[in-house]
Amino acid sequence: MADIIAPHPYFPQDVPIPHYVRSKLDMGQAFLTLGSAITVLMIISGLLIGRARNALSGKDKLIVVWMLVCAGIHIVLEGYFSFNHGTLAGKKTVMADLWREYAHSDSRYLTSDPFTVIMEGITAVFDGSFAIVTAYGILADSPIRHPAQLMTSLAQLYGDVLYFATNYMDNFRYTNPHPMYFYGYFVLMNLPWVIIPTYLIVDSCKSIYRGMLIAQRATSVKKAA
Amino acid sequence: MADIIAPHPYFPQDVPIPHYVRSKLDMGQAFLTLGSAITVLMIISGLLIGRARNALSGKDKLIVVWMLVCAGIHIVLEGYFSFNHGTLAGKKTVMADLWREYAHSDSRYLTSDPFTVIMEGITAVFDGSFAIVTAYGILADSPIRHPAQLMTSLAQLYGDVLYFATNYMDNFRYTNPHPMYFYGYFVLMNLPWVIIPTYLIVDSCKSIYRGMLIAQRATSVKKAA
Repeated sequence: MADIIAPHPYFPQDVPIPHYVRSKLDMGQAFLTLGSAITVLMIISGLLIGRARNALSGKDKLIVVWMLVCAGIHIVLEGYFSFNHGTLAGKKTVMADLWREYAHSDSRYLTSDPFTVIMEGITAVFDGSFAIVTAYGILADSPIRHPAQLMTSLAQLYGDVLYFATNYMDNFRYTNPHPMYFYGYFVLMNLPWVIIPTYLIVDSCKSIYRGMLIAQRATSVKKAA
Repeated sequence: MADIIAPHPYFPQDVPIPHYVRSKLDMGQAFLTLGSAITVLMIISGLLIGRARNALSGKDKLIVVWMLVCAGIHIVLEGYFSFNHGTLAGKKTVMADLWREYAHSDSRYLTSDPFTVIMEGITAVFDGSFAIVTAYGILADSPIRHPAQLMTSLAQLYGDVLYFATNYMDNFRYTNPHPMYFYGYFVLMNLPWVIIPTYLIVDSCKSIYRGMLIAQRATSVKKAA
Protein backbone atom coordinates (compact mmCIF):
# COMPACT_ATOMS: atom_id res chain seq x y z
CA MET A 1 0.00 0.00 0.00
CA ALA A 2 2.82 2.35 0.94
CA ASP A 3 4.28 1.81 -2.55
CA ILE A 4 1.38 3.71 -4.05
CA ILE A 5 1.72 6.69 -1.70
CA ALA A 6 5.53 6.87 -1.55
CA PRO A 7 8.16 5.74 -4.06
CA HIS A 8 9.59 3.41 -1.36
CA PRO A 9 8.17 1.57 1.66
CA TYR A 10 10.47 3.10 4.32
CA PHE A 11 10.01 5.55 7.18
CA PRO A 12 9.85 8.51 7.38
CA GLN A 13 7.80 8.15 4.22
CA ASP A 14 9.06 11.42 2.75
CA VAL A 15 12.79 10.62 3.13
CA PRO A 16 14.42 10.67 -0.33
CA ILE A 17 15.83 7.29 -1.41
CA PRO A 18 16.24 8.11 -5.10
CA HIS A 19 17.89 4.91 -6.37
CA TYR A 20 15.49 2.55 -4.63
CA VAL A 21 14.65 -0.69 -6.46
CA ARG A 22 12.57 -3.55 -5.08
CA SER A 23 14.29 -6.66 -3.75
CA LYS A 24 14.12 -10.01 -5.52
CA LEU A 25 14.11 -11.93 -2.24
CA ASP A 26 10.92 -11.79 -0.19
CA MET A 27 11.05 -11.69 3.60
CA GLY A 28 11.09 -15.48 4.02
CA GLN A 29 13.92 -15.91 1.50
CA ALA A 30 15.92 -13.11 3.17
CA PHE A 31 15.66 -14.85 6.53
CA LEU A 32 16.50 -18.22 5.00
CA THR A 33 19.63 -16.71 3.41
CA LEU A 34 20.76 -15.07 6.66
CA GLY A 35 19.91 -18.18 8.66
CA SER A 36 21.89 -20.40 6.27
CA ALA A 37 24.93 -18.11 6.50
CA ILE A 38 24.79 -18.17 10.30
CA THR A 39 24.42 -21.97 10.26
CA VAL A 40 27.56 -22.26 8.11
CA LEU A 41 29.45 -20.03 10.56
CA MET A 42 28.26 -22.21 13.46
CA ILE A 43 29.43 -25.38 11.68
CA ILE A 44 32.85 -23.80 11.02
CA SER A 45 33.02 -22.80 14.71
CA GLY A 46 32.14 -26.38 15.72
CA LEU A 47 34.88 -27.80 13.48
CA LEU A 48 37.46 -25.39 14.93
CA ILE A 49 36.36 -26.25 18.49
CA GLY A 50 36.73 -29.94 17.64
CA ARG A 51 40.29 -29.37 16.44
CA ALA A 52 41.35 -27.26 19.46
CA ARG A 53 44.19 -28.86 21.43
CA ASN A 54 42.99 -27.75 24.86
CA ALA A 55 39.70 -28.84 26.43
CA LEU A 56 37.24 -25.95 26.33
CA SER A 57 34.48 -25.40 28.87
CA GLY A 58 30.92 -25.27 27.59
CA LYS A 59 30.89 -21.51 28.16
CA ASP A 60 34.08 -21.00 26.16
CA LYS A 61 32.70 -23.11 23.31
CA LEU A 62 29.62 -20.88 23.18
CA ILE A 63 31.81 -17.75 23.19
CA VAL A 64 33.83 -19.10 20.24
CA VAL A 65 30.59 -19.68 18.30
CA TRP A 66 29.30 -16.21 19.25
CA MET A 67 32.54 -14.48 18.23
CA LEU A 68 32.82 -16.26 14.88
CA VAL A 69 29.16 -15.64 14.03
CA CYS A 70 29.71 -11.98 15.00
CA ALA A 71 32.89 -11.81 12.90
CA GLY A 72 31.00 -13.12 9.87
CA ILE A 73 28.12 -10.68 10.32
CA HIS A 74 30.43 -7.73 11.08
CA ILE A 75 32.94 -8.29 8.29
CA VAL A 76 30.75 -9.62 5.47
CA LEU A 77 27.29 -8.10 6.01
CA GLU A 78 28.20 -4.86 7.80
CA GLY A 79 31.40 -4.53 5.74
CA TYR A 80 29.30 -4.77 2.57
CA PHE A 81 27.09 -1.99 3.88
CA SER A 82 30.08 0.21 4.76
CA PHE A 83 31.55 -0.08 1.27
CA ASN A 84 28.28 0.26 -0.64
CA HIS A 85 26.09 2.53 1.50
CA GLY A 86 25.86 5.19 -1.21
CA THR A 87 24.40 2.86 -3.84
CA LEU A 88 22.85 0.14 -1.64
CA ALA A 89 19.20 1.12 -2.21
CA GLY A 90 19.53 0.47 -5.94
CA LYS A 91 21.83 -2.57 -5.94
CA LYS A 92 20.55 -5.90 -7.28
CA THR A 93 22.56 -8.23 -5.05
CA VAL A 94 21.51 -10.66 -2.34
CA MET A 95 23.30 -8.53 0.27
CA ALA A 96 21.45 -5.41 -0.87
CA ASP A 97 18.21 -7.41 -0.61
CA LEU A 98 19.06 -8.27 3.01
CA TRP A 99 19.77 -4.63 3.85
CA ARG A 100 16.60 -3.44 2.12
CA GLU A 101 14.68 -5.92 4.27
CA TYR A 102 16.37 -4.78 7.50
CA ALA A 103 15.98 -1.11 6.54
CA HIS A 104 12.23 -1.40 7.19
CA SER A 105 13.29 -1.06 10.82
CA ASP A 106 15.84 1.70 10.10
CA SER A 107 15.89 3.69 6.87
CA ARG A 108 19.23 5.25 7.84
CA TYR A 109 20.80 2.21 6.16
CA LEU A 110 19.56 3.44 2.78
CA THR A 111 20.34 7.16 3.18
CA SER A 112 24.10 7.14 4.03
CA ASP A 113 23.35 8.53 7.49
CA PRO A 114 26.80 9.66 8.76
CA PHE A 115 26.58 8.06 12.21
CA THR A 116 25.30 4.76 10.77
CA VAL A 117 28.01 4.58 8.09
CA ILE A 118 30.88 5.32 10.49
CA MET A 119 29.58 3.08 13.29
CA GLU A 120 29.14 0.20 10.83
CA GLY A 121 32.61 0.80 9.40
CA ILE A 122 34.17 0.58 12.87
CA THR A 123 32.08 -2.52 13.61
CA ALA A 124 33.18 -4.24 10.40
CA VAL A 125 36.89 -3.48 10.75
CA PHE A 126 37.54 -3.30 14.50
CA ASP A 127 34.84 -5.47 16.09
CA GLY A 128 35.11 -8.02 13.26
CA SER A 129 38.90 -8.41 13.60
CA PHE A 130 38.92 -8.54 17.38
CA ALA A 131 36.07 -11.07 17.43
CA ILE A 132 38.37 -13.37 15.42
CA VAL A 133 41.28 -12.63 17.79
CA THR A 134 39.01 -13.53 20.74
CA ALA A 135 37.98 -16.85 19.14
CA TYR A 136 41.65 -17.57 18.37
CA GLY A 137 42.59 -16.64 21.96
CA ILE A 138 40.10 -19.16 23.37
CA LEU A 139 40.94 -21.93 20.88
CA ALA A 140 44.73 -21.50 21.39
CA ASP A 141 44.47 -20.76 25.15
CA SER A 142 46.36 -17.50 24.52
CA PRO A 143 46.61 -14.68 27.09
CA ILE A 144 45.35 -12.34 24.33
CA ARG A 145 41.85 -13.79 24.83
CA HIS A 146 40.55 -11.47 27.53
CA PRO A 147 41.93 -8.16 26.22
CA ALA A 148 40.39 -9.11 22.85
CA GLN A 149 37.08 -10.25 24.37
CA LEU A 150 36.88 -7.04 26.43
CA MET A 151 37.63 -4.77 23.46
CA THR A 152 35.30 -6.59 21.04
CA SER A 153 32.45 -6.59 23.53
CA LEU A 154 32.90 -2.97 24.64
CA ALA A 155 33.02 -1.77 21.02
CA GLN A 156 29.87 -3.81 20.21
CA LEU A 157 28.08 -2.44 23.26
CA TYR A 158 29.12 1.17 22.57
CA GLY A 159 28.01 0.94 18.94
CA ASP A 160 24.69 -0.67 19.79
CA VAL A 161 23.85 1.74 22.64
CA LEU A 162 24.56 4.67 20.30
CA TYR A 163 22.48 2.95 17.62
CA PHE A 164 19.43 2.53 19.86
CA ALA A 165 19.82 5.89 21.60
CA THR A 166 20.26 8.05 18.47
CA ASN A 167 17.11 6.44 17.09
CA TYR A 168 15.31 7.17 20.37
CA MET A 169 16.51 10.82 20.20
CA ASP A 170 14.90 11.04 16.74
CA ASN A 171 11.62 9.53 18.07
CA PHE A 172 12.15 6.30 16.08
CA ARG A 173 11.14 8.12 12.93
CA TYR A 174 13.37 5.90 10.74
CA THR A 175 11.45 2.81 11.86
CA ASN A 176 8.31 1.30 10.41
CA PRO A 177 6.01 1.35 13.46
CA HIS A 178 4.53 -2.08 12.67
CA PRO A 179 5.36 -4.33 15.66
CA MET A 180 7.05 -6.87 13.40
CA TYR A 181 9.53 -4.25 12.23
CA PHE A 182 9.82 -2.30 15.46
CA TYR A 183 10.05 -5.20 17.93
CA GLY A 184 10.93 -8.06 15.58
CA TYR A 185 13.67 -6.32 13.60
CA PHE A 186 14.74 -3.16 15.38
CA VAL A 187 14.63 -4.38 18.99
CA LEU A 188 15.16 -8.15 18.77
CA MET A 189 17.88 -8.09 16.11
CA ASN A 190 19.95 -5.57 18.06
CA LEU A 191 19.28 -6.42 21.70
CA PRO A 192 21.63 -9.46 21.69
CA TRP A 193 24.51 -7.00 21.05
CA VAL A 194 23.66 -5.20 24.27
CA ILE A 195 23.01 -8.22 26.50
CA ILE A 196 25.79 -10.62 25.44
CA PRO A 197 28.61 -8.00 25.25
CA THR A 198 27.60 -6.69 28.71
CA TYR A 199 27.89 -10.23 30.10
CA LEU A 200 31.24 -10.78 28.31
CA ILE A 201 32.63 -7.44 29.54
CA VAL A 202 31.89 -8.41 33.14
CA ASP A 203 33.29 -11.91 32.47
CA SER A 204 36.56 -10.47 31.07
CA CYS A 205 36.93 -7.88 33.84
CA LYS A 206 36.59 -10.61 36.47
CA SER A 207 39.05 -12.93 34.68
CA ILE A 208 41.61 -10.15 34.17
CA TYR A 209 41.20 -9.00 37.79
CA ARG A 210 41.87 -12.52 39.08
CA GLY A 211 44.74 -13.06 36.62
CA MET A 212 46.44 -9.75 37.44
CA LEU A 213 46.11 -10.50 41.16
CA ILE A 214 47.83 -13.88 40.70
CA ALA A 215 50.51 -12.22 38.54
CA GLN A 216 51.06 -9.48 41.15
CA ARG A 217 51.54 -12.06 43.91
CA ALA A 218 53.76 -14.28 41.73
CA THR A 219 55.94 -11.27 40.88
CA SER A 220 56.20 -10.08 44.48
CA VAL A 221 57.10 -13.64 45.61
CA LYS A 222 59.87 -13.68 42.99
CA LYS A 223 61.07 -10.25 44.07
CA ALA A 224 61.10 -11.34 47.74
CA ALA A 225 62.98 -14.55 46.91
CA MET B 1 30.46 40.54 10.76
CA ALA B 2 28.63 37.20 10.76
CA ASP B 3 26.33 38.61 13.47
CA ILE B 4 24.85 41.02 10.97
CA ILE B 5 24.18 38.39 8.32
CA ALA B 6 23.04 35.56 10.61
CA PRO B 7 21.43 35.71 14.06
CA HIS B 8 24.37 33.63 15.41
CA PRO B 9 28.04 33.21 14.46
CA TYR B 10 27.99 29.41 13.89
CA PHE B 11 28.27 27.14 10.86
CA PRO B 12 26.37 26.26 8.77
CA GLN B 13 25.19 29.86 8.94
CA ASP B 14 21.56 28.96 8.24
CA VAL B 15 21.28 26.35 11.02
CA PRO B 16 18.51 27.42 13.42
CA ILE B 17 19.75 28.14 16.95
CA PRO B 18 16.65 29.99 18.18
CA HIS B 19 17.57 30.61 21.83
CA TYR B 20 21.09 31.87 21.10
CA VAL B 21 22.42 34.61 23.39
CA ARG B 22 25.95 36.05 23.34
CA SER B 23 28.47 34.87 25.94
CA LYS B 24 29.73 37.12 28.73
CA LEU B 25 33.21 35.58 28.63
CA ASP B 26 35.38 36.45 25.67
CA MET B 27 37.71 33.89 24.14
CA GLY B 28 40.64 34.71 26.46
CA GLN B 29 38.46 34.48 29.57
CA ALA B 30 36.98 31.17 28.40
CA PHE B 31 40.45 29.68 28.01
CA LEU B 32 41.55 31.09 31.35
CA THR B 33 38.54 29.48 33.03
CA LEU B 34 39.13 26.10 31.40
CA GLY B 35 42.87 26.33 32.07
CA SER B 36 42.28 27.14 35.75
CA ALA B 37 39.91 24.19 36.14
CA ILE B 38 42.45 21.83 34.55
CA THR B 39 45.20 23.25 36.80
CA VAL B 40 43.07 22.54 39.89
CA LEU B 41 42.52 18.96 38.68
CA MET B 42 46.29 18.58 38.16
CA ILE B 43 46.99 19.85 41.67
CA ILE B 44 44.45 17.40 43.14
CA SER B 45 46.10 14.61 41.12
CA GLY B 46 49.51 15.63 42.45
CA LEU B 47 48.25 15.57 46.05
CA LEU B 48 46.73 12.11 45.57
CA ILE B 49 49.95 10.83 43.98
CA GLY B 50 51.90 12.22 46.96
CA ARG B 51 49.64 10.33 49.38
CA ALA B 52 49.80 7.00 47.48
CA ARG B 53 51.35 4.20 49.54
CA ASN B 54 53.16 2.51 46.66
CA ALA B 55 55.93 4.10 44.61
CA LEU B 56 54.57 5.05 41.18
CA SER B 57 56.64 5.17 38.01
CA GLY B 58 56.79 8.48 36.15
CA LYS B 59 54.53 6.99 33.46
CA ASP B 60 51.91 5.90 35.99
CA LYS B 61 51.96 9.35 37.62
CA LEU B 62 51.24 10.92 34.24
CA ILE B 63 48.40 8.44 33.63
CA VAL B 64 46.84 9.35 37.00
CA VAL B 65 46.95 13.05 36.06
CA TRP B 66 45.52 12.31 32.59
CA MET B 67 42.69 10.17 33.99
CA LEU B 68 41.68 12.68 36.66
CA VAL B 69 41.79 15.62 34.23
CA CYS B 70 39.69 13.50 31.83
CA ALA B 71 37.25 12.58 34.62
CA GLY B 72 36.78 16.26 35.46
CA ILE B 73 36.22 17.26 31.84
CA HIS B 74 33.95 14.27 31.12
CA ILE B 75 31.79 14.50 34.24
CA VAL B 76 31.57 18.25 34.80
CA LEU B 77 31.87 19.87 31.36
CA GLU B 78 30.49 17.12 29.14
CA GLY B 79 27.97 16.11 31.83
CA TYR B 80 26.72 19.72 31.88
CA PHE B 81 26.29 19.58 28.12
CA SER B 82 24.43 16.25 28.29
CA PHE B 83 21.93 17.57 30.84
CA ASN B 84 21.43 21.01 29.25
CA HIS B 85 21.88 20.48 25.51
CA GLY B 86 18.32 21.61 24.74
CA THR B 87 18.70 25.03 26.36
CA LEU B 88 22.49 25.48 26.21
CA ALA B 89 22.53 28.11 23.44
CA GLY B 90 20.48 30.52 25.59
CA LYS B 91 21.92 29.78 29.04
CA LYS B 92 23.76 32.56 30.92
CA THR B 93 26.25 30.39 32.83
CA VAL B 94 30.02 30.11 32.62
CA MET B 95 29.68 26.52 31.37
CA ALA B 96 27.31 27.63 28.61
CA ASP B 97 29.86 30.32 27.69
CA LEU B 98 32.54 27.64 27.34
CA TRP B 99 30.30 25.51 25.11
CA ARG B 100 29.30 28.51 22.97
CA GLU B 101 33.01 29.18 22.48
CA TYR B 102 33.80 25.57 21.54
CA ALA B 103 30.73 25.36 19.29
CA HIS B 104 32.48 27.65 16.79
CA SER B 105 34.26 24.47 15.80
CA ASP B 106 31.11 22.32 15.95
CA SER B 107 27.61 23.80 16.00
CA ARG B 108 26.12 20.35 16.76
CA TYR B 109 26.71 21.25 20.41
CA LEU B 110 24.03 23.95 20.17
CA THR B 111 21.45 22.04 18.11
CA SER B 112 20.87 18.88 20.21
CA ASP B 113 22.36 16.73 17.44
CA PRO B 114 21.34 13.15 18.42
CA PHE B 115 24.77 11.55 17.95
CA THR B 116 26.55 14.35 19.84
CA VAL B 117 24.12 14.25 22.78
CA ILE B 118 24.28 10.46 23.20
CA MET B 119 28.05 10.21 22.68
CA GLU B 120 28.63 12.99 25.25
CA GLY B 121 26.23 11.31 27.69
CA ILE B 122 28.15 8.03 27.43
CA THR B 123 31.44 9.93 27.79
CA ALA B 124 30.24 11.75 30.90
CA VAL B 125 28.82 8.71 32.70
CA PHE B 126 30.91 5.77 31.49
CA ASP B 127 34.29 7.27 30.50
CA GLY B 128 34.17 9.67 33.47
CA SER B 129 33.51 6.91 36.04
CA PHE B 130 36.05 4.49 34.61
CA ALA B 131 38.71 7.21 34.39
CA ILE B 132 38.33 7.59 38.17
CA VAL B 133 38.48 3.79 38.64
CA THR B 134 41.69 3.73 36.56
CA ALA B 135 43.29 6.47 38.67
CA TYR B 136 42.21 4.63 41.83
CA GLY B 137 43.60 1.37 40.40
CA ILE B 138 47.02 2.93 39.84
CA LEU B 139 47.10 4.78 43.18
CA ALA B 140 46.00 1.68 45.14
CA ASP B 141 47.98 -0.80 42.99
CA SER B 142 44.74 -2.69 42.35
CA PRO B 143 44.33 -5.38 39.63
CA ILE B 144 41.28 -3.41 38.44
CA ARG B 145 43.66 -0.83 36.91
CA HIS B 146 44.17 -2.36 33.46
CA PRO B 147 40.59 -3.47 32.74
CA ALA B 148 39.54 0.07 33.74
CA GLN B 149 42.32 1.74 31.71
CA LEU B 150 41.46 -0.40 28.67
CA MET B 151 37.73 0.32 28.90
CA THR B 152 38.13 4.06 29.54
CA SER B 153 40.59 4.45 26.68
CA LEU B 154 38.64 2.35 24.18
CA ALA B 155 35.43 4.24 24.94
CA GLN B 156 37.28 7.58 24.54
CA LEU B 157 38.84 6.44 21.27
CA TYR B 158 35.55 5.10 19.89
CA GLY B 159 33.69 8.30 20.79
CA ASP B 160 36.38 10.55 19.33
CA VAL B 161 36.77 8.59 16.08
CA LEU B 162 32.99 8.71 15.59
CA TYR B 163 33.10 12.42 16.43
CA PHE B 164 35.75 13.23 13.82
CA ALA B 165 34.40 10.84 11.19
CA THR B 166 30.74 11.92 11.35
CA ASN B 167 31.92 15.49 10.91
CA TYR B 168 34.06 14.41 7.96
CA MET B 169 31.03 12.61 6.42
CA ASP B 170 29.13 15.90 6.62
CA ASN B 171 32.03 17.78 4.94
CA PHE B 172 32.85 19.66 8.17
CA ARG B 173 29.84 21.87 7.61
CA TYR B 174 29.33 22.39 11.37
CA THR B 175 32.78 23.93 11.68
CA ASN B 176 33.84 27.53 11.21
CA PRO B 177 36.48 27.13 8.47
CA HIS B 178 38.81 29.72 10.06
CA PRO B 179 42.09 27.84 10.84
CA MET B 180 41.88 28.90 14.50
CA TYR B 181 38.54 27.13 14.88
CA PHE B 182 39.18 24.27 12.49
CA TYR B 183 42.75 23.37 13.54
CA GLY B 184 42.96 25.10 16.90
CA TYR B 185 39.63 23.97 18.34
CA PHE B 186 38.26 21.12 16.25
CA VAL B 187 41.47 19.20 15.54
CA LEU B 188 43.82 20.11 18.41
CA MET B 189 41.24 19.92 21.21
CA ASN B 190 40.11 16.45 20.13
CA LEU B 191 43.25 14.80 18.78
CA PRO B 192 44.66 14.07 22.29
CA TRP B 193 41.67 11.74 22.81
CA VAL B 194 42.74 9.71 19.80
CA ILE B 195 46.49 9.61 20.45
CA ILE B 196 46.65 9.08 24.23
CA PRO B 197 43.85 6.44 24.41
CA THR B 198 45.47 4.53 21.54
CA TYR B 199 48.76 4.48 23.46
CA LEU B 200 46.99 3.45 26.69
CA ILE B 201 45.02 0.68 24.94
CA VAL B 202 48.25 -0.84 23.64
CA ASP B 203 49.84 -0.35 27.09
CA SER B 204 46.97 -2.16 28.84
CA CYS B 205 46.81 -4.98 26.29
CA LYS B 206 50.55 -5.62 26.77
CA SER B 207 50.27 -5.51 30.57
CA ILE B 208 47.23 -7.80 30.63
CA TYR B 209 48.89 -10.20 28.17
CA ARG B 210 51.99 -10.45 30.37
CA GLY B 211 49.91 -10.71 33.56
CA MET B 212 47.62 -13.42 32.18
CA LEU B 213 50.65 -15.38 30.95
CA ILE B 214 52.22 -15.27 34.43
CA ALA B 215 48.86 -16.24 35.96
CA GLN B 216 48.46 -19.14 33.49
CA ARG B 217 51.91 -20.49 34.35
CA ALA B 218 51.40 -19.97 38.09
CA THR B 219 48.09 -21.85 37.91
CA SER B 220 49.50 -24.71 35.83
CA VAL B 221 52.45 -25.04 38.25
CA LYS B 222 49.95 -25.29 41.13
CA LYS B 223 47.89 -27.84 39.22
CA ALA B 224 51.01 -29.88 38.46
CA ALA B 225 52.20 -29.78 42.08
